[in-house]
Amino acid sequence: MYQVEVFVTYKESILDPQGEAVKNAVHRLEFNEVADVRIGKYFELKIEKSQRPVAEIVEELCQQLLANEVLESYRYDIKEVN
Amino acid sequence: MYQVEVFVTYKESILDPQGEAVKNAVHRLEFNEVADVRIGKYFELKIEKSQRPVAEIVEELCQQLLANEVLESYRYDIKEVN
Repeated sequence: MYQVEVFVTYKESILDPQGEAVKNAVHRLEFNEVADVRIGKYFELKIEKSQRPVAEIVEELCQQLLANEVLESYRYDIKEVN
Repeated sequence: MYQVEVFVTYKESILDPQGEAVKNAVHRLEFNEVADVRIGKYFELKIEKSQRPVAEIVEELCQQLLANEVLESYRYDIKEVN
Protein backbone atom coordinates (compact mmCIF):
# COMPACT_ATOMS: atom_id res chain seq x y z
CA MET A 1 0.00 0.00 0.00
CA TYR A 2 1.17 3.51 -0.77
CA GLN A 3 0.27 6.67 1.13
CA VAL A 4 0.30 9.56 -1.35
CA GLU A 5 0.00 13.26 -0.55
CA VAL A 6 -1.02 15.53 -3.44
CA PHE A 7 -0.74 19.33 -3.23
CA VAL A 8 -2.67 21.39 -5.77
CA THR A 9 -2.17 25.16 -5.82
CA TYR A 10 -2.90 28.02 -8.17
CA LYS A 11 -0.05 28.86 -10.53
CA GLU A 12 1.99 31.86 -9.36
CA SER A 13 0.55 34.07 -12.14
CA ILE A 14 -3.05 33.35 -11.07
CA LEU A 15 -4.74 35.65 -8.52
CA ASP A 16 -5.76 33.68 -5.41
CA PRO A 17 -8.88 35.47 -4.08
CA GLN A 18 -9.30 33.01 -1.20
CA GLY A 19 -5.71 33.55 -0.18
CA GLU A 20 -6.22 37.32 -0.28
CA ALA A 21 -9.35 37.00 1.86
CA VAL A 22 -7.54 34.90 4.47
CA LYS A 23 -4.60 37.33 4.44
CA ASN A 24 -6.96 40.22 5.18
CA ALA A 25 -8.54 38.24 8.00
CA VAL A 26 -5.10 37.37 9.37
CA HIS A 27 -4.13 41.05 9.41
CA ARG A 28 -7.41 41.99 11.11
CA LEU A 29 -6.38 39.52 13.85
CA GLU A 30 -3.13 41.53 14.01
CA PHE A 31 -0.80 38.80 12.74
CA ASN A 32 1.16 41.48 10.90
CA GLU A 33 4.19 39.21 10.45
CA VAL A 34 2.24 37.26 7.79
CA ALA A 35 3.39 38.59 4.42
CA ASP A 36 1.50 36.27 2.09
CA VAL A 37 -1.14 33.52 2.12
CA ARG A 38 -1.86 31.08 -0.70
CA ILE A 39 -4.48 28.38 -0.41
CA GLY A 40 -4.64 25.03 -2.18
CA LYS A 41 -6.16 21.59 -2.10
CA TYR A 42 -4.55 18.72 -0.25
CA PHE A 43 -5.34 15.07 -1.01
CA GLU A 44 -4.36 12.02 1.00
CA LEU A 45 -4.66 8.91 -1.18
CA LYS A 46 -4.19 5.25 -0.24
CA ILE A 47 -3.20 3.30 -3.35
CA GLU A 48 -2.79 -0.46 -3.48
CA LYS A 49 0.21 -2.02 -5.16
CA SER A 50 -0.48 -3.21 -8.70
CA GLN A 51 1.27 -3.91 -12.02
CA ARG A 52 1.20 -0.21 -12.79
CA PRO A 53 3.86 2.08 -11.29
CA VAL A 54 2.21 4.17 -8.56
CA ALA A 55 3.74 7.42 -9.88
CA GLU A 56 2.08 6.79 -13.25
CA ILE A 57 -1.30 6.32 -11.51
CA VAL A 58 -0.84 9.51 -9.49
CA GLU A 59 0.22 11.54 -12.57
CA GLU A 60 -2.86 10.42 -14.46
CA LEU A 61 -5.13 11.12 -11.46
CA CYS A 62 -3.73 14.64 -11.17
CA GLN A 63 -4.07 15.36 -14.88
CA GLN A 64 -7.54 13.85 -15.27
CA LEU A 65 -9.22 14.79 -12.01
CA LEU A 66 -7.39 16.43 -9.12
CA ALA A 67 -5.85 19.47 -10.83
CA ASN A 68 -7.02 21.90 -13.49
CA GLU A 69 -3.74 22.35 -15.37
CA VAL A 70 -4.84 25.61 -16.95
CA LEU A 71 -4.91 27.33 -13.55
CA GLU A 72 -3.24 24.97 -11.15
CA SER A 73 0.04 23.17 -10.60
CA TYR A 74 0.46 19.99 -8.56
CA ARG A 75 3.14 18.05 -6.77
CA TYR A 76 3.02 14.86 -4.74
CA ASP A 77 4.88 12.74 -2.22
CA ILE A 78 4.67 8.94 -2.34
CA LYS A 79 5.41 6.79 0.72
CA GLU A 80 5.29 3.00 0.79
CA VAL A 81 3.50 2.03 3.99
CA ASN A 82 3.28 -1.77 3.85
CA MET B 1 11.44 35.04 6.18
CA TYR B 2 9.79 31.70 6.85
CA GLN B 3 7.92 29.56 4.35
CA VAL B 4 5.23 27.64 6.25
CA GLU B 5 3.03 24.86 4.92
CA VAL B 6 -0.15 24.12 6.89
CA PHE B 7 -2.23 20.98 6.29
CA VAL B 8 -5.77 20.91 7.64
CA THR B 9 -7.77 17.68 7.36
CA TYR B 10 -10.92 16.25 8.88
CA LYS B 11 -10.32 14.15 11.97
CA GLU B 12 -10.34 10.40 11.25
CA SER B 13 -13.72 9.95 12.97
CA ILE B 14 -15.38 12.59 10.77
CA LEU B 15 -17.03 11.53 7.49
CA ASP B 16 -15.36 13.25 4.51
CA PRO B 17 -18.14 13.63 1.90
CA GLN B 18 -15.84 15.40 -0.57
CA GLY B 19 -13.31 12.61 -0.26
CA GLU B 20 -16.04 10.04 -0.86
CA ALA B 21 -17.23 11.93 -3.94
CA VAL B 22 -13.71 12.08 -5.40
CA LYS B 23 -13.19 8.38 -4.61
CA ASN B 24 -16.34 7.50 -6.56
CA ALA B 25 -15.17 9.64 -9.47
CA VAL B 26 -11.74 7.99 -9.34
CA HIS B 27 -13.33 4.55 -9.50
CA ARG B 28 -15.57 5.61 -12.41
CA LEU B 29 -12.32 6.52 -14.22
CA GLU B 30 -11.23 2.94 -13.43
CA PHE B 31 -8.40 3.78 -11.05
CA ASN B 32 -9.38 0.75 -8.99
CA GLU B 33 -6.03 0.70 -7.16
CA VAL B 34 -7.16 3.75 -5.18
CA ALA B 35 -8.42 2.46 -1.83
CA ASP B 36 -9.16 5.75 -0.06
CA VAL B 37 -9.28 9.51 -0.70
CA ARG B 38 -9.31 12.22 1.96
CA ILE B 39 -9.36 15.89 1.11
CA GLY B 40 -8.05 18.81 3.13
CA LYS B 41 -6.98 22.42 2.95
CA TYR B 42 -3.39 23.41 2.22
CA PHE B 43 -1.96 26.82 3.13
CA GLU B 44 1.34 28.31 2.04
CA LEU B 45 2.25 31.19 4.35
CA LYS B 46 5.18 33.61 4.14
CA ILE B 47 5.94 34.92 7.64
CA GLU B 48 8.51 37.60 8.39
CA LYS B 49 10.94 37.18 11.26
CA SER B 50 9.88 39.00 14.43
CA GLN B 51 10.31 38.90 18.23
CA ARG B 52 7.71 36.18 18.42
CA PRO B 53 8.69 32.57 17.72
CA VAL B 54 7.25 31.60 14.31
CA ALA B 55 5.80 28.32 15.66
CA GLU B 56 3.81 30.30 18.22
CA ILE B 57 2.39 32.51 15.45
CA VAL B 58 1.47 29.48 13.33
CA GLU B 59 -0.16 27.68 16.27
CA GLU B 60 -2.33 30.70 17.04
CA LEU B 61 -3.22 31.16 13.34
CA CYS B 62 -4.33 27.53 13.12
CA GLN B 63 -6.38 27.68 16.32
CA GLN B 64 -7.99 31.05 15.60
CA LEU B 65 -8.54 30.91 11.85
CA LEU B 66 -7.22 28.13 9.65
CA ALA B 67 -8.67 25.05 11.38
CA ASN B 68 -11.95 24.25 13.08
CA GLU B 69 -10.64 22.14 15.95
CA VAL B 70 -14.01 20.49 16.57
CA LEU B 71 -13.87 18.74 13.17
CA GLU B 72 -10.35 19.22 11.90
CA SER B 73 -6.77 18.52 12.85
CA TYR B 74 -3.76 20.45 11.56
CA ARG B 75 -0.04 20.06 11.15
CA TYR B 76 2.59 22.33 9.67
CA ASP B 77 6.14 22.48 8.32
CA ILE B 78 8.29 25.56 8.85
CA LYS B 79 11.27 26.36 6.58
CA GLU B 80 13.54 29.35 6.99
CA VAL B 81 14.07 30.76 3.50
CA ASN B 82 16.23 33.86 4.07
